[in-house]
Amino acid sequence: MRGDVPKYVAIKGILLARMERELTPGSRVPSEAELCADFGVSRATVQQALRLLESAGCIRREQGRGTFYVGRSMPRTEQRPSELLESLIKHRDGAMTKVVHKQVRTPPAVVADRLGISADSEIVYLERIGIVEGEPIVFIRTFLPYDLGQKVLSDEHDLERMTIATLLEDKHGIRIASVRQTISATLADPSFAEYLDIDIGSPVLEGQRIYFDQSERPIFCTITFYRADRHCFVVTLKDWR
Amino acid sequence: MRGDVPKYVAIKGILLARMERELTPGSRVPSEAELCADFGVSRATVQQALRLLESAGCIRREQGRGTFYVGRSMPRTEQRPSELLESLIKHRDGAMTKVVHKQVRTPPAVVADRLGISADSEIVYLERIGIVEGEPIVFIRTFLPYDLGQKVLSDEHDLERMTIATLLEDKHGIRIASVRQTISATLADPSFAEYLDIDIGSPVLEGQRIYFDQSERPIFCTITFYRADRHCFVVTLKDWR
Repeated sequence: MRGDVPKYVAIKGILLARMERELTPGSRVPSEAELCADFGVSRATVQQALRLLESAGCIRREQGRGTFYVGRSMPRTEQRPSELLESLIKHRDGAMTKVVHKQVRTPPAVVADRLGISADSEIVYLERIGIVEGEPIVFIRTFLPYDLGQKVLSDEHDLERMTIATLLEDKHGIRIASVRQTISATLADPSFAEYLDIDIGSPVLEGQRIYFDQSERPIFCTITFYRADRHCFVVTLKDWR
Repeated sequence: MRGDVPKYVAIKGILLARMERELTPGSRVPSEAELCADFGVSRATVQQALRLLESAGCIRREQGRGTFYVGRSMPRTEQRPSELLESLIKHRDGAMTKVVHKQVRTPPAVVADRLGISADSEIVYLERIGIVEGEPIVFIRTFLPYDLGQKVLSDEHDLERMTIATLLEDKHGIRIASVRQTISATLADPSFAEYLDIDIGSPVLEGQRIYFDQSERPIFCTITFYRADRHCFVVTLKDWR
């Protein structure tokens, strides 16, 4: 769960993003000299980054001809920002979530504030991975007030096929009236990079959600990290003005 | 526009994101020893990362007492995923966009595909910065077929106050019927990090948009990079199932 963040890992990540933005499969990748100049790093660093990209199957190096972009190994899963994990799991074969950690603990200060509870109170903390086609796509942290958490933990098998929100509504009659979701970007933290099978410092989408009851009181909250190379949000605007 | 990506910059970014997620202003930051263990790096690297955070005003170090989280220097601008830059600029005092680069060039292969034009054809390429309260928030790349681009370039003053979509509709009668937006996360590239006043490798939200006419033909496209520390997308779901 721990690890180093060598410079060439960042270069690799930036370069891969740039290739996906600009190149179609089979396009030529800029030369090592151009990349050195562009990133202001040594040729050794550029070579290490290219080696990582090659062993990940993202580029192909041909003796005497140059380096070529291979293309995405897997299409990104797409989700509307108004959909929750729900849809990702419900509509795909072999999609599931797996509980990798559960704990009774005190909440981080931000979470205590968000749920309107004391920072000394006990909560149930869950860590789950969402898996699509055998690959981890999302890492989900859930923070539940103690009582609610105990209810959720009694259904561990259901947690693999249902979201916590569905479970609370359908099994425990707790009505969730609305969800507020914030979508941002962040860097993979050592506390979850390995679960998502990505390098520390890789780009990830971060979704923070608060689930509210009918009186707009927060019920519980989650923080979800999506692999940026495997997931994106898509919205089509008809009335864009 | 070029630069290095030292390891402690990545650690700084990850640590700052973690503090924002977990700590309220005034909370104690874990000790150097804990951070070394957590990130698997040397104390010197952790100290450099903490020094960057201190000089950015994110943390405060008190002799003999420890290190404390100060809080966000600025709230994030928030936008619904269904809103375009439009709303960000329209509804805020002092918000504007500034053209920093314009060029007639051939399109990147991906853009040519997206617009259904030949990779040899000339397009108009624009780079703009969106500024809110004196701070750069977004960096926008726009790719326009040549004819359309010439129309847009004739209105450079308007480009500071209007989006390209509004300009095309209101001044040139080109009707935009829908916009498809993809939201993802990426790392700041040397080609725009300086414009956004962030370190190379910092997390950024990436919005890719295609503007369509009534027959669903692509008209033009943009790639927008939002500083992750200054911007997020927010959606409230009433009917979350």
